[in-house]
Amino acid sequence: MTDSNAQPPSRRALLGWGGAGLALGAAAAGGAAAARAGDGPETDAGSAVEFHGPHQAGIATPVQDRLHFAAFDVTTDDRAAFVGLLKEWTGAARRMTAGRAVGAGAYGGLAEAPPDDTGEALGLKPSRLTLTIGFGPSLFGKFDLAGRRPEALVELPRFSGDNLDRDRSGGDLCVQACADDPQVAVHAIRNLARIGFGRVVVRWSQLGFGKTSSTTPDAQTPRNLFGFKDGTRNISGAEKDRLEKFVWVGKKDGPAWMTGGSYLVARRIRMHIETWDRTPLQEQEDIFGRDKGEGAPVGRAKERDEPFLKAMKPDAHVRLAHPDANAGATILRRGYSFTDGTDGLGRLDAGLFFLAYQRDPRTGFIRIQRNLADDALNEYIQHVGSAVFAVPPGVRDQDDWWGRALFTEEA
Amino acid sequence: MTDSNAQPPSRRALLGWGGAGLALGAAAAGGAAAARAGDGPETDAGSAVEFHGPHQAGIATPVQDRLHFAAFDVTTDDRAAFVGLLKEWTGAARRMTAGRAVGAGAYGGLAEAPPDDTGEALGLKPSRLTLTIGFGPSLFGKFDLAGRRPEALVELPRFSGDNLDRDRSGGDLCVQACADDPQVAVHAIRNLARIGFGRVVVRWSQLGFGKTSSTTPDAQTPRNLFGFKDGTRNISGAEKDRLEKFVWVGKKDGPAWMTGGSYLVARRIRMHIETWDRTPLQEQEDIFGRDKGEGAPVGRAKERDEPFLKAMKPDAHVRLAHPDANAGATILRRGYSFTDGTDGLGRLDAGLFFLAYQRDPRTGFIRIQRNLADDALNEYIQHVGSAVFAVPPGVRDQDDWWGRALFTEEA
Repeated sequence: MTDSNAQPPSRRALLGWGGAGLALGAAAAGGAAAARAGDGPETDAGSAVEFHGPHQAGIATPVQDRLHFAAFDVTTDDRAAFVGLLKEWTGAARRMTAGRAVGAGAYGGLAEAPPDDTGEALGLKPSRLTLTIGFGPSLFGKFDLAGRRPEALVELPRFSGDNLDRDRSGGDLCVQACADDPQVAVHAIRNLARIGFGRVVVRWSQLGFGKTSSTTPDAQTPRNLFGFKDGTRNISGAEKDRLEKFVWVGKKDGPAWMTGGSYLVARRIRMHIETWDRTPLQEQEDIFGRDKGEGAPVGRAKERDEPFLKAMKPDAHVRLAHPDANAGATILRRGYSFTDGTDGLGRLDAGLFFLAYQRDPRTGFIRIQRNLADDALNEYIQHVGSAVFAVPPGVRDQDDWWGRALFTEEA
Repeated sequence: MTDSNAQPPSRRALLGWGGAGLALGAAAAGGAAAARAGDGPETDAGSAVEFHGPHQAGIATPVQDRLHFAAFDVTTDDRAAFVGLLKEWTGAARRMTAGRAVGAGAYGGLAEAPPDDTGEALGLKPSRLTLTIGFGPSLFGKFDLAGRRPEALVELPRFSGDNLDRDRSGGDLCVQACADDPQVAVHAIRNLARIGFGRVVVRWSQLGFGKTSSTTPDAQTPRNLFGFKDGTRNISGAEKDRLEKFVWVGKKDGPAWMTGGSYLVARRIRMHIETWDRTPLQEQEDIFGRDKGEGAPVGRAKERDEPFLKAMKPDAHVRLAHPDANAGATILRRGYSFTDGTDGLGRLDAGLFFLAYQRDPRTGFIRIQRNLADDALNEYIQHVGSAVFAVPPGVRDQDDWWGRALFTEEA
């Protein structure tokens, strides 16, 4: 639908000060004209990612450089108002991911009314923005949804070493915004929060400044804040078989409204980088089970060589996290590095905002995280935030909306 | 010095696992080989900014996309140890801004020792990294520096509306790291903090996700989180006359060690975006004194048209901040938008990390900020962090170091 290589019409040209409504209608009818005001032709990095499809974008689609993630709590008990919000959000997400402003835009509406768009993304490219929604366990305690809660949407158990901050955990809803330009991601979350005023409120949010995992195997593997390559063996967006097996909820998994969806586990993992930085190189490499330069598993030469687990120390991270050590358990990782100022003790509050998608958290993250209780890395990290969400399937077309099957179809 | 268009030698090729010391010596002698491991030819966006010169880079040089800023407090009373740190920092900054690892790098040293570089920027381009140091008023209470404190380095007065958080204010030292890749900026601050262990400690730090001002007049003017273009009439890095007049400390200004330096005012300005987003468009435009789309001053057609101040409301931001309203006072702005999670009240903790360079804060920021006491914008913003620093001149050559004139030359 989005032809991001075509010269897009200038939003300024479409949007005369007088005839804004009409001009915007024409633009909408013409499909996603993927440009904000005054841009030239799209580049790849600036291009739009298709919003519609059987799965939500932002899971198996290529990982963008930056993240803004927000968890929301519902503040209304009016089911119709909440459904209305989901529809409005879907419309706004459809426009923003195509690189367009929300509604009439930041200066296309009435002078006497607040603008429909906050405006700070005007002139910026779509930047591969994806918006991905999830429903937390607590949502199913509202709106008579109890009977529709998926069995797989369990509360995460307490794991060894957890030191969770309630204010950075949980949430009735989440939206993951990923884009190559952080201003575009922040703009999207901020506008969804604005639209949600009176119906939802931001519970917590997290900015991620750099991706730590990739879903494109040929790209250079990103490094985490411990300086190691991360996500070498991650599921690629092109591996349909592994996606079906490990990421997408199948028809037989149930409930029906989740078919084509996935489950997201989010963990804010503080990394004690100051301690790590005083650890000898050999010890760092032993802890990970890979070398630091190339990223090769212990005893191997190249990053993508098959790990030989028995050559690693028994508590090496790669050894304990490997599918072979976890009955095959495999998750799609999509995490980001963060740094949020300082911790009051002269240390950077930095780490990994871990995001993992899976077909079932019980046989995915929970299985693996339990096995990481003895991970040598635990001396240097601490899980301080946690949440789990049921991520519904994609929005199929212009008439569909986020969560439609959950709210309207028979169980 | 840095020929960023030349095919740089691969760091991997130079850096055999055996002969790291020798190979690195050769690379250093050959000047700044501006690439990290395994990169191809540099692109413009990936290129290096010259570290040496009469002025520090990061002030009049083009504004990069991302910021990591840190204020440090000194924890040693040993002057020689502190001078040693400044020398080590200079060496590390020289290497990192050229796109190279610190010392032997993340995997080029001894296996039994912690690596000289934390490694997360391996494989990334220089990304126009600049590192700019500043000395806070409190530093001059240490190391017998009292007599060397510039008269212009005053503590900022309390301004109307200030609500400053001590933990986000002040600092003996600061380092501003700007780069197009945030991982490169974060890596730089983190490695300086690592090198400073036992001599300095991070007091506070701030990540800026998007620039809000430009020092290149032909580029598209960035927008702040209120959706308005910001810094339209900022001093351009090419305007030598205005830089001499308003930014660089001259010989007659004194003290001698500051000649070619500048003064930096940093203010963390929380923006109440949720309130702003419910404000009518006309009111928003009245408050700024510009229109939202084009950025034209009230009554004018184009962004860069000369503002006609009397056409604006008396409390319009542009009117009160304009040089004509401030005895000509002009500052070079280099601020960044931030979002640091939520404030516990369901609102994003977002705003502007305001950075301004000037020849004298008394006739620069202080003059202007006093005049902004009646600014209509004050209803929507709050200054919550504040610091001021004397920014010494540039490092002249390979033998020079940050602060040399302050610590070694006669007053």
